[in-house]
Amino acid sequence: MNQKNTIGIVKSKQFKSVSPLVLQNGETLDEYELTYETYGTLSKKKDNAILVCHALSGDHHLAGKYTKKDKYPGWWDTLIGPNKPLNTNKFFVIGVNNLGGCSGSTGPKTINKKTKAPWGAKFPIVTVEDWVNSQNALLDNLGITQLAGVLGGSLGGMQALQWAIQFPNKIRHAIVIASAPNLTAQNIAFNEVARQSIITDPDFNKGNYYQNHTKPKRGLRIARMLGHITYLSDDVMGTKFGRKLTNNKIGYNLKTEFEIESYLNYQGDKFAKEFDANTYLRMTKALDYFDPGNGKIKQLSKVFKKIKAKFLVISFSSDWRFTSERSKSIVKALLDNNVEVSYADIAAASGHDAFLMSNPKYHSILETYFQKLLRKS
Amino acid sequence: MNQKNTIGIVKSKQFKSVSPLVLQNGETLDEYELTYETYGTLSKKKDNAILVCHALSGDHHLAGKYTKKDKYPGWWDTLIGPNKPLNTNKFFVIGVNNLGGCSGSTGPKTINKKTKAPWGAKFPIVTVEDWVNSQNALLDNLGITQLAGVLGGSLGGMQALQWAIQFPNKIRHAIVIASAPNLTAQNIAFNEVARQSIITDPDFNKGNYYQNHTKPKRGLRIARMLGHITYLSDDVMGTKFGRKLTNNKIGYNLKTEFEIESYLNYQGDKFAKEFDANTYLRMTKALDYFDPGNGKIKQLSKVFKKIKAKFLVISFSSDWRFTSERSKSIVKALLDNNVEVSYADIAAASGHDAFLMSNPKYHSILETYFQKLLRKS
Repeated sequence: MNQKNTIGIVKSKQFKSVSPLVLQNGETLDEYELTYETYGTLSKKKDNAILVCHALSGDHHLAGKYTKKDKYPGWWDTLIGPNKPLNTNKFFVIGVNNLGGCSGSTGPKTINKKTKAPWGAKFPIVTVEDWVNSQNALLDNLGITQLAGVLGGSLGGMQALQWAIQFPNKIRHAIVIASAPNLTAQNIAFNEVARQSIITDPDFNKGNYYQNHTKPKRGLRIARMLGHITYLSDDVMGTKFGRKLTNNKIGYNLKTEFEIESYLNYQGDKFAKEFDANTYLRMTKALDYFDPGNGKIKQLSKVFKKIKAKFLVISFSSDWRFTSERSKSIVKALLDNNVEVSYADIAAASGHDAFLMSNPKYHSILETYFQKLLRKS
Repeated sequence: MNQKNTIGIVKSKQFKSVSPLVLQNGETLDEYELTYETYGTLSKKKDNAILVCHALSGDHHLAGKYTKKDKYPGWWDTLIGPNKPLNTNKFFVIGVNNLGGCSGSTGPKTINKKTKAPWGAKFPIVTVEDWVNSQNALLDNLGITQLAGVLGGSLGGMQALQWAIQFPNKIRHAIVIASAPNLTAQNIAFNEVARQSIITDPDFNKGNYYQNHTKPKRGLRIARMLGHITYLSDDVMGTKFGRKLTNNKIGYNLKTEFEIESYLNYQGDKFAKEFDANTYLRMTKALDYFDPGNGKIKQLSKVFKKIKAKFLVISFSSDWRFTSERSKSIVKALLDNNVEVSYADIAAASGHDAFLMSNPKYHSILETYFQKLLRKS
């Protein structure tokens, strides 16, 4: 058996647009950049490329480290690497920071060349469709005319799905994990509370906070704490934290007392330092807007008529943010159109976060699928 | 059949403590007041009193109106009144604003006689046990030596449970609805996000905001919006709001666009005007701390040994804040001690909020139970 290795030291690259991008909101971005990373080697036929799309707070750094000193590798390092389920000895894997992001791609904190100031509030609200168009421009630049597959979890899964709709001839496989054909009212509700906590932070300054050298850290912190609750299942929170106290006794004050509080505050603080609030707002809006079937199951089946890709759909039993039922509605609409689809509902306790973890059954399904994909392509 | 009537015009009363209250945190309140309301007539034997305990944001105003012009009656008017399930022609019903509240009882916004300033941050963190002790002082004052029953939903149900533990001889029946023997890690997590949104609001001023004539409205608003998500089920949100837009089209901006957003913002704004943030913080802490079994099922059974009251426990199928499983664990610990307990899990779509609604099956079970209670008492 081959040894599984990390990809080692990696370096991100910059793609500069060669033509303007017309956005769904009607605006046009005259120029933009996308930060991306690639792993493995593009085949001579350029037919082994897998695009990996990120979720709400992800980025292009999927695997490996930038320096040996880095504490953590890329966010999907357990999945992607030499002889890993997504085997970089066989596939050419691409990670892109989405347009509007804050990890290198053009976004709200980027300097707008026209005004010589950060875009801030004026950076458009981009959509999943816009991302797919911009990713397509990058692929054109790399000379890739057809992707072996697009893979993504959560919001990343929505991008994989949209790729199959938007460019049916340019994608052979879509791997849609812990995702949904649109958000439910409850999903939108959580996003709105996150947004309101950012927007009403006095340091938000209507989105133009870069000039003041401030950041709406308080709001972003609350948004992230809330996010983390929805990423975990009630059960796994019970097992991990339960009612454990950090200090063994109740203090009858408003300080952090339970371990779960400590965990959330830590996550919130960390995120508020690293991430950009304007990007967070835009990512949640892209989630809210995504709705290829316009809220109707029948309409979804109609839209799926044009799909030519084959599908792997995966959900997790304890994911209450994007339930298994939501994945099944994607599968149903695919089957309505005789699309070849494999579906697995993985028994996992970790909730929505399960898609980032290396559950053996989950990873073995992905590995098998990628091997099959290799044989066919 | 008797006609069901509202209780009509009601008036709240004020109870002034006659002796100091030693709190669980070790402090002593030398004096305090409780605002309360009563409905119906106390029998000569003083044996027909039902104490109704309120939840997080409730108060003593259970039924009727203060003036004919009031838009809404008390919060449990559908349940309590002449010939209603809790029949005020038969029972003497008492509603109390909890200590630390903001509807008349001594709390953070009350003037502390010693300092001649509002208590603010110095108002102690009170517990369910403290509330039961203070409610007991009120009952002593009313000359009631034994309650026919204590009724409450959610945090109110915890008080009913605690009454049965703390004063086993003073309560004949406990009616515990949509409640739990303690909070889960997820419950605490939601409370902590709510607290952090208040505490980090620049207008919070460490809890001493009354002097500045400010209120941490932003934080309280976020807390309430989040609360409302947990009060409703995913399903009922889907039915009520779904993905409906307020303006029929997407605006590609950060304004309120979906009806669910509009609903949450309205609820948040309303609550932030009316409620006191310091009280909200204390109510969530009382929830977090409540844990008669110290987190252990076996310990709960042991604590329940002293219970003499009979129980009615009710849960709702779609309540994910306090699931049916949580109610069943109360029932289990009661049965371990041969306590007479009736249990109903009501099929209802509304989530945790179902306990405030007039689902016919739910109200008919309560009505039957109260009638039985009357025969026995």
